[in-house]
Formats: sequence, structure tokens, C-alpha cells
Amino acid sequence: MNTNNNCMIAQSGGPTVAINASLAGIIKEAINNNAIGTVYGAINGVKGLMEDRLLNLSDIFGGNDELLNKLTLTPAMYLGSCRYRLKTPDVDSTDYELVFNIFKKYDIKYFLYIGGNDSMDTVAKLSDYAKKINYDINIMGVPKTIDNDLACTDHTPGFGSAAKYIATSILEIAHDAYIYNVESVTIVEIMGRNVGWLTGAAALARNSYSEAPHLIYLPERAFDKDEFIASVKELLGKRKHVIVAISEGIHDDKGNYISASSDNVDQFGHVALSGAGKYLENLVAKEIGCKVRSVELNVLQRCATHISSGADISESFEIGRYALKQTVEGQTGKMVTINRISSSPYEYELGTKSIHDIANVEKGVPLEWINAEGNDVLEAFYTYARPLIEGENFNLGYCGGIPSYMDVSHLYGLKK
Amino acid sequence: MNTNNNCMIAQSGGPTVAINASLAGIIKEAINNNAIGTVYGAINGVKGLMEDRLLNLSDIFGGNDELLNKLTLTPAMYLGSCRYRLKTPDVDSTDYELVFNIFKKYDIKYFLYIGGNDSMDTVAKLSDYAKKINYDINIMGVPKTIDNDLACTDHTPGFGSAAKYIATSILEIAHDAYIYNVESVTIVEIMGRNVGWLTGAAALARNSYSEAPHLIYLPERAFDKDEFIASVKELLGKRKHVIVAISEGIHDDKGNYISASSDNVDQFGHVALSGAGKYLENLVAKEIGCKVRSVELNVLQRCATHISSGADISESFEIGRYALKQTVEGQTGKMVTINRISSSPYEYELGTKSIHDIANVEKGVPLEWINAEGNDVLEAFYTYARPLIEGENFNLGYCGGIPSYMDVSHLYGLKK
Repeated sequence: MNTNNNCMIAQSGGPTVAINASLAGIIKEAINNNAIGTVYGAINGVKGLMEDRLLNLSDIFGGNDELLNKLTLTPAMYLGSCRYRLKTPDVDSTDYELVFNIFKKYDIKYFLYIGGNDSMDTVAKLSDYAKKINYDINIMGVPKTIDNDLACTDHTPGFGSAAKYIATSILEIAHDAYIYNVESVTIVEIMGRNVGWLTGAAALARNSYSEAPHLIYLPERAFDKDEFIASVKELLGKRKHVIVAISEGIHDDKGNYISASSDNVDQFGHVALSGAGKYLENLVAKEIGCKVRSVELNVLQRCATHISSGADISESFEIGRYALKQTVEGQTGKMVTINRISSSPYEYELGTKSIHDIANVEKGVPLEWINAEGNDVLEAFYTYARPLIEGENFNLGYCGGIPSYMDVSHLYGLKK
Repeated sequence: MNTNNNCMIAQSGGPTVAINASLAGIIKEAINNNAIGTVYGAINGVKGLMEDRLLNLSDIFGGNDELLNKLTLTPAMYLGSCRYRLKTPDVDSTDYELVFNIFKKYDIKYFLYIGGNDSMDTVAKLSDYAKKINYDINIMGVPKTIDNDLACTDHTPGFGSAAKYIATSILEIAHDAYIYNVESVTIVEIMGRNVGWLTGAAALARNSYSEAPHLIYLPERAFDKDEFIASVKELLGKRKHVIVAISEGIHDDKGNYISASSDNVDQFGHVALSGAGKYLENLVAKEIGCKVRSVELNVLQRCATHISSGADISESFEIGRYALKQTVEGQTGKMVTINRISSSPYEYELGTKSIHDIANVEKGVPLEWINAEGNDVLEAFYTYARPLIEGENFNLGYCGGIPSYMDVSHLYGLKK
């Protein structure tokens, strides 16, 4: 065991259900790799790293596969997170000096950063800086985001589980909506301000007997309130219950978000942006008058491990292992990418891509996957997304009726 | 097989994750019972019954245990529902004549109505009327509600699964809240306008490393905004992340619901009642100023079969079987009740009680199970509720990544 070549891992950005699976994959591979001494984890991303707030992951997880399995199926981020963009070093190199002092202090030869777009920006900046100061370290980006908007990869870890949550929830909400013999409209608001991958995943709720959602509005297309009302009315002419899926970020053709007007003030006189779902609920009540409700699929879209996707979790774990191997083999300034070989049967392979091709690029749903009217997705979307939500993680342990997750009290920041 | 003694079943009121398990239990017992000819189901409760909208459940489910298992784990109501209170027959006996004409037409000797408080009122009225007109029929009420507020029964089918959903969700929301190294308050708004059973169930999210929720506010106690803010501030003095569970029905000591003031108007100028969670989010933002968000646990509290409680589903099935047996043995004007023998180990037995003791009585959380400050539940609540959320239904089938539920297209009411 080479004690002078240690490994550091950190997580950053918004949480997903799968990011700890990637962490577990990296740890498993690193602990078993003779090229690596100690495996460290920084708490709260690059910020915690700069502050020397670390965990010794070799001590915590060494030789304990059961604990790694538990980590694999723990939601959110075991190492905590931060939302922090490094300035460019020419502007201010303070952060870089702090980071590289830590790398030096702990003999870090391999640094893996698991995160989304902003995190890949950090990987780009740090690996460029390392080259600039001739520091011998390999820095790898490991993708993560429920939004599925990272460039150069077929999809991102975390998306499949969020999509499974959405599809399952919409099917259950549909069953709930069908029970009364009165007309009803249900509007389901889904995460994803700028891209419609999660909203499109609502289509996966459709099955042999249920067509819900009957309308799907992605933010890639301008939203037309008149078309929406006309479509809902037309559907109500043929069925009693209409279910609509919308992205939280739908906007009109001038780019204005669909939300409450400035008349919506809260009890303190502040303009309160109500969501698009609530706005459309009020619109339907006014223009159509039938029973209507809006449901906001909340933060559980990104932390509901109890309904995680088997495909997502196992891929995320493999991506962690692969990332570590590539890093040890000399790759730096790269991100691990998923490349789809085929959809049916579903086959993929892993690769790496230069971080500069990826950072700060946002990938939306292809316009040709959306129907002409802009209120549904086409077959290509199903073909793409279905494999990513398949498989169930029935091996999740429960105790006293609730899931058994990893102890994360090291994140608490208790005072006094 | 006695073809002149048929059985009719219907469901009514708000849906739960367990009501179809009770339906399946009744059907299974009825199909195998020689005293019964055909088993019918009325679509959309007593309203559909009056309109002669029926399903032949013997045809659909006869001899098919696999299909009954699928029904057991299907959310909402397979037979649809209605929200309808019968007038007293002295006031207007039209409904009664319609109902009993149907009973006569189909030789109904046994009628079972699965529902909550309003449904038990229907059972009371119909069984009284049957006695009055000397009609030979046995009418049984089968309990159902997520709110757990039916009198004379230890708990109600549907509560355990909703409680499991709430506890699991709060643990996952807590994991999500813990990841950033900044102070944060998360307010989780839970169903149950008048009674705090579901809100109290949030306490079951607490485990060996996570104390969330740190505060719990039930509607049985008056809500004091100043106490709330003071408690949150005190907790923030000791920890970074505070999670609060509140009932949607919390109100001040004058009975006013905690919600937006009349300043909250929507884009059409209508006063929009924002939820208690949103109100408190704004209050914390104003009075404390830290990062704060509110999460409304939405309709999924009552239809998320994917996280149903093993105890709840198996009990609900047994209750259905028991109800059918009691009805055939001559009981009428009764509701099946659950009686707890012990909590540890958890043991219960079934019984029946006169419907007049139950209908229109609402059972809240005992005040002695709430702490003096009114912001938490005591040990007695855990002891009571824990067994009801235990067990997982891993036998739920999935296809293409989403659960496989019963086809409910007979509820659609398609037009033209």
C-alpha cells in the first residue's frame, strides 16, 4: 500500500438518490486498489475541503461491504454538499491555494468530485490550475443530477430514480383522481426549471389502461394558455378526468414564467411567486369551472430512495468504480460519461470526455422528441427513458417501518 | 350455491392505500362462502348503487387469487367512490327506495360498505330503514380512513400506510436538508385538518442519528406563533437544520386557521388560502431570516401504495374477510372494529360494534399523548403507532419500472 498516494472524494450541488451509490463505488474500488493509500472524504464539497473538514473513509468503510451497500441506498449526500463556484485564478487564487495546501497536506494524488454542471466547472478549474503550477494530481468529474442536463453523456446518475418517482407518483395520483364520478382536472407540477427531462418522464406512467398524464408541457416549448385551456376542454369532452403534467419552468413565448401575477402578495405584502401549477389551477377554475387541483411533486423527487430505480443505482455504483480506475490510470480533467449502445435490449458503456466540453453546457430535451402541438412527448422519449427507470431496490433495509440509511450526524454542524 | 342470497359491496369517502385490500378480503371470503350466490360491486358508492351501475365481482375475481393479490395492492378505490350523505328517510325517502329496489332486483342479502365517518352514517341509516320496512338484509360497515378518526376502533385501515409514507418521507427530507453547511428550517405540512394522527406519525421518522422532526404541531392544541418562532430560534442555537411537522389544520386559540391573510389574492383577485406551511415559511423568513422552505406532503399520503405498510395491508385484508363472515352469520347495523391486545408484541383481534356508537363521532389524539408545550408527542404515541407502519410489501409487482395495479377503466365514465 502506497501511503503517499491518497485519494480525496467530495460531493457538490443538488442532491439525488444515486449520488451516494457513486460514492460507494469509488470507495470500494479505491480501498481495494494497491495504488492508493488512504481514502478521504471532504465534508460539504470544495468548501469543506478548503476548511480541512474531512472524514477518513478507509477507516469507516474498509472491508465492510454491508456498510457500503447501506451507503449505496442512502439518499441525498453522505459527504454533504456546497453550492460554490470558484473564481478564475487570475481574478483570485486564494481558494486554489487553500485547496492545494490540503492536497499537499494529505498527499492527495487522486481527487474525484461528484456533481452537476457547477461541479464540473470546479473540476475544470482545479485541473487546469494543477497543470499550470505543475502539481502532480489527477482530478476526475463524476456526473450527477436529477435534471439530466449534463452534456456529452447519454443520461446522468440520479435522473432514472427521479423519473421512476415521477412516473409512479403520477400513476398513483391518477388512480386517486379516477374515483369520483365528477369531472376533474389534476395538474402535476414537476421539477426542472430549464429542461424537460423530468417532466417528460411523466409519460412513463402511461400503461395498458391509464393514459395519464393526458397532456405534458415541457419548458423547451413556449406555453400557450389558450391552447392549454382548449386542450383541456377537448379532453373533458371525451373523459371525466384529465391529468396534466407541467414543468415548474413553463413560460410564454416572451419568456415570462407561468406563475402568479404581482397581485399575489403574502401576509407581509411581499410578492409571492406561486408555482405554475397553482396558477393553472386558478385558470381552470375560472375558465372551465370544474373540480380542479394542483399537486406539486416536491423535494421527494430528489431524495425518495424508497422508490429508487434499480438501473440508476447499479449504474451509479459502476460509474464510481470506473471513475476511480480511470483516475488511477492517469486520466485528469475529465468527466465519466455514459454512452448508450442500444435501448432494446438496454446496453451502455462508460467512457470519459474532456471536462471543457461539458462544463457550463446545458442539454435539453431534443425538440424532435416533442409533438407538434407542444403538449406531449413522442415515442423516442419512451424508448430513451424507459430502461432508466427499470428495476426495484427491494434489498433496501427497513427497521421499525422506516428505511435504514447511513448515519449522517457528521453533517449536523452542532453548535456549543 | 344459493343464488338467492347475493352480496353487494361498495366503497365511499376519501381513498386510502388499504381500502382495496379490504375489498379483496371480502371478495375472497364471499366467493368461497356457500351461503352466497353472486358477489356484486357498486361503482361510485351508494350513488352508483342507486343508478344500478354494478360490476360482477364473482366473474372478475372468481378463482383468481393472483388477481385478488393485485387488487390488494392497488391504491385508491377499485369500485370508485362518492361523497354523499343520505337524508333521513322522514325528510326524503327517495334514495332509500332506489337503494332497496336495487337490493330487491339483485337479491342482495348482504351489503358491505367500506368507508369512513360519512359512510358509517349511511350504514346506520340503511340498516335502520331495513328494520323499519322489515327488509331481510344484513348491512355491515367496514372501516377505512387515513385520518384514523373513527371511534370505537384502535385504528383504521389506511392509517398505517399513510403514517409509513409520512415517516419515510420526513426521514428522506431530513437527509436532503442536512447536506448544506448553512442554517435552514424545513416545514412539512401534513394532512389531517381536525385530528393529528397523521401529523403525530411524523415522530416515527426519528431514529438513532436523526431527531427530525424537531417540532410537531397537532391541531388538538392551539398554535401559538410566538412560541413557534421562539422554539425554532432556540433549536437553531444548537443545530444548523430544524425540521418542523405541522398539521394542515393548526389554528390559534380563537380557532382561526393558520394560513394567509386576506392580502393573499390570486391572479383573479380571489382570496387564496395558502397552506399553513407556506404561511409559517413566510413568518420564519421575516422573523428569523435564515434559509427556509415548506413542503406540502400532498395527495400521495393517501395513494402511495409503493410504500404501503405490511401491517396495514394484511390487517385490512383480514378485516374484509372478517366483515363478510360476520355479515353472513347475521350481524347487521355494525362496524368491524380493531381491538389492540398488546403493543409489544403487537397483537390485535377483530370485533364489531353498533354503528350508532360510531357514526359521526370523531376521535382525536389523546391530549395526554401531547407534551405540555404542545410541540411534540410523547412515548405513548410511538408505542401506539410504531407497529402499524411495520412490514414492507415487496411483493408489489412492477412492469416497465412502474407498479402493476388493477385496471380501473370502468371508472372512467368515458363520454360519446
